[in-house]
Amino acid sequence: MSSGAASRTNGILLIPTSEPRTAMKFDDRPVFPRGFRCASTNCGLKPDAKDLALFVSDRDAAAAAVFTRNLFPGAPVILGRETIRGGTLRAIVANSKCSNVATGPVGIENARRMAAAAAREIGSAAERVLVSSTGVIGVQLPIEKIERGIVGLAAKLQPDPMVGAEGIMTTDTHPKALSARVGDATITWVAKGSGMIEPNMATMLAYIFTDAQLDAPALDAMLRSAVHVSFNMLSVDTDTSTSDTCAILANGLAGRVDEKAFLETLTAGCIKMTETLARDGEGAKHLLRTTVRGAGSEDDARKVAKSLVNSPLIKTMVHGADPNVGRLLMAVGKVFDVNVRAAATDAWINGHAVVKGGERLSFDEATVRAALANEVVDLEVALGLGTSSATAYGCDLTAGYIEENAAYYSS
Amino acid sequence: MSSGAASRTNGILLIPTSEPRTAMKFDDRPVFPRGFRCASTNCGLKPDAKDLALFVSDRDAAAAAVFTRNLFPGAPVILGRETIRGGTLRAIVANSKCSNVATGPVGIENARRMAAAAAREIGSAAERVLVSSTGVIGVQLPIEKIERGIVGLAAKLQPDPMVGAEGIMTTDTHPKALSARVGDATITWVAKGSGMIEPNMATMLAYIFTDAQLDAPALDAMLRSAVHVSFNMLSVDTDTSTSDTCAILANGLAGRVDEKAFLETLTAGCIKMTETLARDGEGAKHLLRTTVRGAGSEDDARKVAKSLVNSPLIKTMVHGADPNVGRLLMAVGKVFDVNVRAAATDAWINGHAVVKGGERLSFDEATVRAALANEVVDLEVALGLGTSSATAYGCDLTAGYIEENAAYYSS
Repeated sequence: MSSGAASRTNGILLIPTSEPRTAMKFDDRPVFPRGFRCASTNCGLKPDAKDLALFVSDRDAAAAAVFTRNLFPGAPVILGRETIRGGTLRAIVANSKCSNVATGPVGIENARRMAAAAAREIGSAAERVLVSSTGVIGVQLPIEKIERGIVGLAAKLQPDPMVGAEGIMTTDTHPKALSARVGDATITWVAKGSGMIEPNMATMLAYIFTDAQLDAPALDAMLRSAVHVSFNMLSVDTDTSTSDTCAILANGLAGRVDEKAFLETLTAGCIKMTETLARDGEGAKHLLRTTVRGAGSEDDARKVAKSLVNSPLIKTMVHGADPNVGRLLMAVGKVFDVNVRAAATDAWINGHAVVKGGERLSFDEATVRAALANEVVDLEVALGLGTSSATAYGCDLTAGYIEENAAYYSS
Repeated sequence: MSSGAASRTNGILLIPTSEPRTAMKFDDRPVFPRGFRCASTNCGLKPDAKDLALFVSDRDAAAAAVFTRNLFPGAPVILGRETIRGGTLRAIVANSKCSNVATGPVGIENARRMAAAAAREIGSAAERVLVSSTGVIGVQLPIEKIERGIVGLAAKLQPDPMVGAEGIMTTDTHPKALSARVGDATITWVAKGSGMIEPNMATMLAYIFTDAQLDAPALDAMLRSAVHVSFNMLSVDTDTSTSDTCAILANGLAGRVDEKAFLETLTAGCIKMTETLARDGEGAKHLLRTTVRGAGSEDDARKVAKSLVNSPLIKTMVHGADPNVGRLLMAVGKVFDVNVRAAATDAWINGHAVVKGGERLSFDEATVRAALANEVVDLEVALGLGTSSATAYGCDLTAGYIEENAAYYSS
């Protein structure tokens, strides 16, 4: 389950192609765990849309976070790494339109001022406020607008996670939140952006809130485990944002939970949110899932799955529902340093066998064309060399992506 | 020169933005070296356009070749690796429309039949004929049509390299050939396709002919050196063809040449052809050159240059002439395993400084926008850490690329 694996029966691949590959039950309308609230507003960074969000726990929460691996991280990421070392958060404050990246010492100072303003507003300390910014790189934060915007937000805090989700939207076409139950506890995911993409004002920000009682080291280990098979396997366009942040807060109001069940639900929700982000990738019309199994190592499986999900020729093939299936072998073979053997390599498109032993099979083209036209396209490659597997998540490549990204700065 | 480096004067970057960065003189109209001729025809693989080409040396030529690193190479590449071990070639025969990849033992047999047919036609041995095929992956070669098409080509051989260049065109918008002089000798380049791209029927095929007298080991060393800084630094879309082939034939009719001068001209011509291929990348409107200098190692410089040239967000920024310059830092920083230091990192767009010490500079936007609108866009990043440099070659990303690749198979 943890990697969203498909099952096989008698050599036939069974992948449900229109449902998330998990039986986990999510709420029809997302709710917050006990003790979490949020508010969002327009503080003048954008003309009208909301551009500032505040997420608050009624009491200090154990916390963990992971950040972008980009070597030019934004000021909020630099500060966030320092903040999260304390293992405790009361709030997250986030703005869009300006990412506060490539802004030097002034940028760091502005990120600190943003944390301090949120701390004053809720009566906490700046060291317990995580800051995120998303938007154009290389422009100084209009910090006075943000400071003014934060004043009064405490009075507007609401128990609806969609309010916060709306506040961090940028190029997203809809706000994104999920919630699910683990025993007496609730886990809630709020996210924005389109994954690795660093486009108009997007960046992946994912915040996870729970009232389960877990300490910071346990949260950190579980967050890393869940992110490994979900957000870290998401790619819209190979471009890694300088601002990506995924944080989890646990305020303990629901008491202890079964840690195995918690990790299972945490992972399922992260995968479901990953699919939600991939589906809403800029210009995307299809959710593309690429699964590699039978690899000699997990690292090989992950590399090949990413190569498949990122290949422009596979992404355009999915966009055009055109069964140019040789491209699957091309995208496997271009990962020069993995262990593959042509004669052992098989491939499927939404369960239809298209390659066997490194050779293209003859198949009914209308059937495969119809499978490719499905909103969810699952590509599976079996390397026949070992037992490791991995799934990556992405989307098709369309003219919409180019339109959105060719003229952001000036629009 | 060999890596097409720009020069610097008093800290100002001088990059000629509309001329190839080499003083090498190429012929206005390409010619063949002594003793080389070619022919091309339609043998029925395509409705009307030429789909079969034959290049012949009047006498045995010393030869070397490099092939795709894709782990699923086509039958002609598998056979070609065997053929080139002999170090001698009389001819190259190439077809388009079908790549003979993922075709198993039948594919290998068909590649051998194609070599044998060409050898019969010119009175040589199959072991001295290099075969190339380009087109759809996973379809068996219509070998009878090709064998029939080869019969009679010997009588049509002409001394014009453009005839052969036309015969190997696929998605190229124009035939591509170059020639230049080294002492008494001539070097001629004939190429097709759009580099790493493995799209409609494209694949990079590059053939180099010379009447200089050089043995196979010397040719091999020089070819690898030239390809390292030219074709191997070309990327249209990160997708590595299963058929890429670059071969050089030297028939010795012009006698010995200065090897240093030969290598210099060989390299300059390979870079010029690389730029020609990048410019004609599918849907391309701009030639994009990315130069990284001041890197701690050549490997670091090459990785970062490739990251820049392949970033969809940089490619769309160039397409839109939109000075969203923070994307340069993002694309440097996403190469996690290279040595960079934000405070030492500077960047330029067509000679205009846009980043200094990891921070975006304020610059005149209209000027940078105009620079980005130039047909040639040079992005330079100085890492300030060492003395290594590299240049990569690519193009912008446009809706044309998507249109061409979303519906090839069925068109």
